[in-house]
Amino acid sequence: MMFASDNWAGAALPVLEALVAAGLARPEPAYGDDSVTRALERRFSDLFEREVAVVLVPTGTAANSLAVATFTPPWGAIVAHEEGHLMIDECGAPEFYSGARAYRLPAHRGLFTPEGLAAGLDAIPQGLHHGRLSVVSLTLPNEFGLLYTPGELATLAAVAHDRGLAVHLDGARFANAVARLGVAPADVTWRAGVDVLSFGGTKGGCAMAEAIVLFDPARREELLFRRKRAGQLISKHRFVAAQFEAWLDRGLWLDLATHANRMADLLADGIAACPHTRLAWRPGANEVFAFFSPETAARLEAAGARFYDWSTAALAADDLPRDGEKLWRLVTSFATRPEEVAAFLAALAAL
Amino acid sequence: MMFASDNWAGAALPVLEALVAAGLARPEPAYGDDSVTRALERRFSDLFEREVAVVLVPTGTAANSLAVATFTPPWGAIVAHEEGHLMIDECGAPEFYSGARAYRLPAHRGLFTPEGLAAGLDAIPQGLHHGRLSVVSLTLPNEFGLLYTPGELATLAAVAHDRGLAVHLDGARFANAVARLGVAPADVTWRAGVDVLSFGGTKGGCAMAEAIVLFDPARREELLFRRKRAGQLISKHRFVAAQFEAWLDRGLWLDLATHANRMADLLADGIAACPHTRLAWRPGANEVFAFFSPETAARLEAAGARFYDWSTAALAADDLPRDGEKLWRLVTSFATRPEEVAAFLAALAAL
Amino acid sequence: MMFASDNWAGAALPVLEALVAAGLARPEPAYGDDSVTRALERRFSDLFEREVAVVLVPTGTAANSLAVATFTPPWGAIVAHEEGHLMIDECGAPEFYSGARAYRLPAHRGLFTPEGLAAGLDAIPQGLHHGRLSVVSLTLPNEFGLLYTPGELATLAAVAHDRGLAVHLDGARFANAVARLGVAPADVTWRAGVDVLSFGGTKGGCAMAEAIVLFDPARREELLFRRKRAGQLISKHRFVAAQFEAWLDRGLWLDLATHANRMADLLADGIAACPHTRLAWRPGANEVFAFFSPETAARLEAAGARFYDWSTAALAADDLPRDGEKLWRLVTSFATRPEEVAAFLAALAAL
Amino acid sequence: MMFASDNWAGAALPVLEALVAAGLARPEPAYGDDSVTRALERRFSDLFEREVAVVLVPTGTAANSLAVATFTPPWGAIVAHEEGHLMIDECGAPEFYSGARAYRLPAHRGLFTPEGLAAGLDAIPQGLHHGRLSVVSLTLPNEFGLLYTPGELATLAAVAHDRGLAVHLDGARFANAVARLGVAPADVTWRAGVDVLSFGGTKGGCAMAEAIVLFDPARREELLFRRKRAGQLISKHRFVAAQFEAWLDRGLWLDLATHANRMADLLADGIAACPHTRLAWRPGANEVFAFFSPETAARLEAAGARFYDWSTAALAADDLPRDGEKLWRLVTSFATRPEEVAAFLAALAAL
Repeated sequence: MMFASDNWAGAALPVLEALVAAGLARPEPAYGDDSVTRALERRFSDLFEREVAVVLVPTGTAANSLAVATFTPPWGAIVAHEEGHLMIDECGAPEFYSGARAYRLPAHRGLFTPEGLAAGLDAIPQGLHHGRLSVVSLTLPNEFGLLYTPGELATLAAVAHDRGLAVHLDGARFANAVARLGVAPADVTWRAGVDVLSFGGTKGGCAMAEAIVLFDPARREELLFRRKRAGQLISKHRFVAAQFEAWLDRGLWLDLATHANRMADLLADGIAACPHTRLAWRPGANEVFAFFSPETAARLEAAGARFYDWSTAALAADDLPRDGEKLWRLVTSFATRPEEVAAFLAALAAL
Repeated sequence: MMFASDNWAGAALPVLEALVAAGLARPEPAYGDDSVTRALERRFSDLFEREVAVVLVPTGTAANSLAVATFTPPWGAIVAHEEGHLMIDECGAPEFYSGARAYRLPAHRGLFTPEGLAAGLDAIPQGLHHGRLSVVSLTLPNEFGLLYTPGELATLAAVAHDRGLAVHLDGARFANAVARLGVAPADVTWRAGVDVLSFGGTKGGCAMAEAIVLFDPARREELLFRRKRAGQLISKHRFVAAQFEAWLDRGLWLDLATHANRMADLLADGIAACPHTRLAWRPGANEVFAFFSPETAARLEAAGARFYDWSTAALAADDLPRDGEKLWRLVTSFATRPEEVAAFLAALAAL
Repeated sequence: MMFASDNWAGAALPVLEALVAAGLARPEPAYGDDSVTRALERRFSDLFEREVAVVLVPTGTAANSLAVATFTPPWGAIVAHEEGHLMIDECGAPEFYSGARAYRLPAHRGLFTPEGLAAGLDAIPQGLHHGRLSVVSLTLPNEFGLLYTPGELATLAAVAHDRGLAVHLDGARFANAVARLGVAPADVTWRAGVDVLSFGGTKGGCAMAEAIVLFDPARREELLFRRKRAGQLISKHRFVAAQFEAWLDRGLWLDLATHANRMADLLADGIAACPHTRLAWRPGANEVFAFFSPETAARLEAAGARFYDWSTAALAADDLPRDGEKLWRLVTSFATRPEEVAAFLAALAAL
Repeated sequence: MMFASDNWAGAALPVLEALVAAGLARPEPAYGDDSVTRALERRFSDLFEREVAVVLVPTGTAANSLAVATFTPPWGAIVAHEEGHLMIDECGAPEFYSGARAYRLPAHRGLFTPEGLAAGLDAIPQGLHHGRLSVVSLTLPNEFGLLYTPGELATLAAVAHDRGLAVHLDGARFANAVARLGVAPADVTWRAGVDVLSFGGTKGGCAMAEAIVLFDPARREELLFRRKRAGQLISKHRFVAAQFEAWLDRGLWLDLATHANRMADLLADGIAACPHTRLAWRPGANEVFAFFSPETAARLEAAGARFYDWSTAALAADDLPRDGEKLWRLVTSFATRPEEVAAFLAALAAL
């Protein structure tokens, strides 16, 4: 009953097998000049239905920070939701990597409307004394596990582009979003106006593998230099590439994400049906948000469940917990077993 | 006959098994709060015979850059050999991470003498207009594959400490040095005055695992913040910890290093005995430097050997290649098979 | 009728005389080792009734940015009002100088209440993933020209100190605040818990002279290194020191500020009395905020008045402009002539 | 007998008068939107015989650091003479402003030959692991007070441009060089291939005024943003512009420089003629380098002379002091009175 986070999980078996294969293969050039990496680059272009540049790093913080740094001068500014991972969870890394400043905007349940984004951007002063807005970072699924449709994304991207800003998509759980939306990866990235994607492999079943996908390959060289200067170029690079190769092969990444999403749906159904718990909103992907009392939480934890309470600072009035309640987040993963969900539902029923 | 670099190799089998075990184990907290990481911290303290703080990162550039950043204010300066990896091979990462400036000092075959280091340090102007020297970074084995003895290291560290500088040891191939010297890890680190060590696992048989070892654990918290802000905190942290755990277990790291060193000795013997090749100096660990002509190189490469030519910019007059010769570097690793060496020696004999 | 900003003014005559005297005096050591600078340091300690360290720079942006950088590690965070100069008007300089991230808090009319500040600080997540709050920057007079009393400042400083944060006071118009409050400089700085002050001379009658005042002189050396590394150490330093010396001598700074404040009061009285204009609030120092229509503004400008419209983004509902109105800011200075104010009042009467 | 440095001097009378005039003039827009600044921009374009962009700052460190930062990405590298001001006297400011790393090259008496510069540049490794060389910074007059001819500068600039590097000219004493060479400012800047110039006003008779001159005005906007972000934009900007305006007016800058150069010549003649002192080399501009004993120095100082000893670290064997000698630097300025020189020559005669 581990619902604390999807990064508590191990890694998918094919990914582990790929690590072993990479480790036992004959020596190959380091720093990305190997055959596994080259094959992977072709695979990404196929997957996204266009020529892309893909640059691998071991952490999501690095992926996000390098991605935005490539699209902002030091006197630029990065804009994201006020609870965006980039804004509060990465210990200043985006500012460190880019030199730019950060602006936080509110949005109901973390989902920008075009009007809200436009108004937020237009309220930030720009010019010589203020610097220039350079990048909007959106999240899919977002901070509350919710999704934009391709059309919604395209409208938001247009708001950014109309003002001369680039669009970054933080896709730490991109697989879960794509699986849920049932769209092509291209539909929620470059076709919707996304300029650069952080495509997370780790939470979805890799061990440590994140990809920065540039839809304009001309920026690749700058990004390669930035990655090296940031100490993010893995020397035995094929150990990262091999993870992605195995994870993307034959749709494994989507199968794993679909499983995680389904487990989240089951959890959500049980929570909605239980009189002592209240679903905050239907899960967009694999994160379930729910209201219940600390006493209920304690009983669930006593039964072996693990999950975190969550900040309500960014929630609107009608989304707030009622008397005695708190907000909780439960995350499923590729590794969540149906038995765990069943045990949780049984614990709910026993409340 | 892969002698290009030890980071062309794969990973040792026990390391790969540990990765698989970590991937299949039950979920555990992320970001280093897991049981594997905790066990590893104890192991490092045992290994170094004192309480140390150990902070893991995926690349050697990150290890070096974070290590020195923790010991310098932004107006400080880092001093190292003019061909030190930190100085020329890390694309400005040490400056980026620390904000400090870099000074390069010459030294015969990259080995500082106490007098040379003292003179070099004392010739660098210090004060309000110049900044302050803050860290000396030494390398073991060094840029030419050579070693300091514990006594030599201690004398150099004293030169630095006498002037108020901290001592960093870049140990990308620390295992090879310890194996060759036959000393305790403590003898060439804190007992010799080293303040912080970059302890490389990757070249020695891990997939991607480097450790920063702080001999004053009080600096741990600062280093943890710096690592996170640099995007270097692996979320599924046990995948890094597990590699070190397996690699350090039952002396595997030293066995692998001893093998690599022995292979280097065999190569060196063959090169010294061959009339068409000339050994530059006896290998200190697992890197063999040799002089021979590009034609000889071409014939060895035609026989399947892989190795790089090397810069002679930092060499003294009597170390320089003679007419028609160039300097070449051949590196062995834990994965070098005796058959490869035998094949190379046969190719030499056939010249 | 120049009410656009107090930095449109020239400089006070005694300041200009001091520049001439410094320019004609016999040569003296550069970089602050001169007799004028030494005398000034004593004067500051006298003025603040305790031993202080004073570090001079030519711009307010540098003063603010160096001041906060001295009190935050790179993984720290600076907190200020959402319209604070540091937060939106300095093109990322505080982040650049410190490496820290910035958090913006709302406050009615820019004046924090202790409860509001505490709640704002406590809502910002802290820890390894978020970084640590390190400095609260308050402004006196604030972004809306309003003042804290010494008691209010002390309560806010206590909120910050209780949470381990240092307190910076942005005093670009500190003279106007002190003159209006009728307190000792110590009362609204160290006695109220302020750790470091940006004491602006430029807007108050200097040509280009800003002082960073450290109430803990032990941090002086770090600040000196930071100033030099930032290219902010004036070589002919006495040209900055001489300005402050003349400006502080015999209470000139307070006389000039009192004059500016009085001119602001006259403006405010006239605006309050005019049926076509509406005073937003009584001026705290030398900035008058008023509501009137763009047509009224156009007529005042046609009569020769200069002033700016102002953002209402941070204002509460009952402070907002009514139909047809906009918010305008009019600033007086040491150089504002009573005839200018009279001409403006006549223009108001003629509306 | 103040020969310690030209920044010990005050300021030229016309500069002081211009400061007073700027201070007493009617209010004008801040931050460079004033009439004095606009007039100055035209004057610089006239002076350099082409459209240039000129950006003013208060310190030479800022001028140099902003100039090079505008021509290097963070993964670039700045190359200069090993005793260049940028390399050792600016406390890491160039690295701080640019993020780039610094490489120091030797050169006899600080004067690069084309072969020496080419060899130096070509010996620095470049590529993904090393970063890319981006800027060569030359100095005129250089660290030893010596000059390049326009032809020599052009050859060096070609060496840099051939390798894709931009050329920065550090002209802290540019006036002295131009006066001595008797050339047009264009001849030793853009016509010789210089991309950006730090044109120092302070040492030559201003109080605090340095200009960055961009020969490609398209980079102006980036530089303006960089200046603001660095806290280097003076709010009452005309106080800087007015200094340059007065200093450049009717050739004052060259008259003052010619005077300083002549005073240096007289000093050099006397030193060369004295049996107890030895001229190191003929002064290129206004800095005299001489060898004599500490005892001689003590007697000169006892007679009232002020000057500094100087590093010989970068000197060739035949330039080194002989037994009992040290190297000393004596600097003249616009403010050096012939009586001071006469007194010094008398003291020499009395040795």
